[in-house]
Amino acid sequence: MLQHIRLVLVETTHPGNIGAVARAMKTMGLSRLYLVSPKIFPSGEATVRASGADDILQNAVVCESLAEAIGDCQRVYGTSTRHRSLDWPVQTPKEAAQCALECASEDEEVAFVFGRESSGLRNDELDLCQWRMSIPSNPEFSSLNLAAAVQVVSYELYQGQLTSQANEPIKREKSAERPVTQGELDGLLTHWTQMMQEIGYYDPDKPRQLTRRMARLFAKAQIDVSELNILRGIAAAVLKRRNVP
Amino acid sequence: MLQHIRLVLVETTHPGNIGAVARAMKTMGLSRLYLVSPKIFPSGEATVRASGADDILQNAVVCESLAEAIGDCQRVYGTSTRHRSLDWPVQTPKEAAQCALECASEDEEVAFVFGRESSGLRNDELDLCQWRMSIPSNPEFSSLNLAAAVQVVSYELYQGQLTSQANEPIKREKSAERPVTQGELDGLLTHWTQMMQEIGYYDPDKPRQLTRRMARLFAKAQIDVSELNILRGIAAAVLKRRNVP
Repeated sequence: MLQHIRLVLVETTHPGNIGAVARAMKTMGLSRLYLVSPKIFPSGEATVRASGADDILQNAVVCESLAEAIGDCQRVYGTSTRHRSLDWPVQTPKEAAQCALECASEDEEVAFVFGRESSGLRNDELDLCQWRMSIPSNPEFSSLNLAAAVQVVSYELYQGQLTSQANEPIKREKSAERPVTQGELDGLLTHWTQMMQEIGYYDPDKPRQLTRRMARLFAKAQIDVSELNILRGIAAAVLKRRNVP
Repeated sequence: MLQHIRLVLVETTHPGNIGAVARAMKTMGLSRLYLVSPKIFPSGEATVRASGADDILQNAVVCESLAEAIGDCQRVYGTSTRHRSLDWPVQTPKEAAQCALECASEDEEVAFVFGRESSGLRNDELDLCQWRMSIPSNPEFSSLNLAAAVQVVSYELYQGQLTSQANEPIKREKSAERPVTQGELDGLLTHWTQMMQEIGYYDPDKPRQLTRRMARLFAKAQIDVSELNILRGIAAAVLKRRNVP
């Protein structure tokens, strides 16, 4: 199942951290590493710190944008140790690992996205992630090293897989339809923002976080393709009326 | 309880690892570090890698022997990723954390002992530990970095403490807004059905289960009052346009 799970590092500054991440992943049986605009890569320092996990570095996929790295994923976790303004549903590493493994067992693609060493993920990057994962930590000193955070998440994924192998396969209620991809969700949001603007409910000058709120709602609902089609249909029908005065 | 738990590093070679261990400990609320014959300590490199956890380095206790570092402990875990004498009871980090916290809550002193970066703990050192802890990992690549292993153990200790404080499993963050009532949900559905009819998307003669599907979507999202208001606002804005030809 772990082959359906990728780790995405956004704009990592220190190549040594990329190597340490590769090592952490490999100790827990993970292999798919995506790098969004790494500052220095490939690098000898990364290889040294990978300490034998060179294959993960060699097979790493370098992308220019986060959207590109997660476009084909059904479930995307943005990781953070801080709490932002809008209260999204935040899962612990253990909960997230459980859900990720459930998705992976259905052949869905799952991503865990990690931000910069200094400043984490920007809000617009977090907005691309339907889910949030936060590692509970000392409120007075919560800055886990990047590779350490990856180690914790990878550890929970590996333990979860061991448990599910030992017991029966993880089950969840099956929707007849497949869940939407991140790309489809983004398209829906754009369409809906257009619609809300058309009916005068959304003002780009006073956004009131409306788009983010709708993103959060759709994420919570874990909408499937048939629901996507309905929501798209509603937006299309509203926009069509514009031309029929 | 965590103040009764110490981490002991035996003959660490790289001072950077000692700093990284201090950082990992502090993120999880641990503070007591014991160093048995460290190769280089104190060291600027350790301080850099501690990244703000300097207090742990400053208060670290340097010992000449493992026996000295654990002499006053009631429970001592020797950690290893490899399995040695197979007849020894080996706990996972989660199990060990649970037991350690039980001991600590009885004011017993607990130690987790970590070996050298290259070769771990010698057998005579493991013999000083009544208990063994092993981090389950990829059988083909099980060499966790020292600080990564400490991060996993510290993480489990912190999670265990949180759980025992809450006296129930860690819960996801609560939404600030209250969830909607069934009556509010019904009102929303009626409003939306009206709207979908108005835009020509819903035909009462061919309902296509649209109302049920929307009901299911809203239910899955477990919408709160602020989301209810947005969805109501959209419907109202669409319906309002009817009167503006």
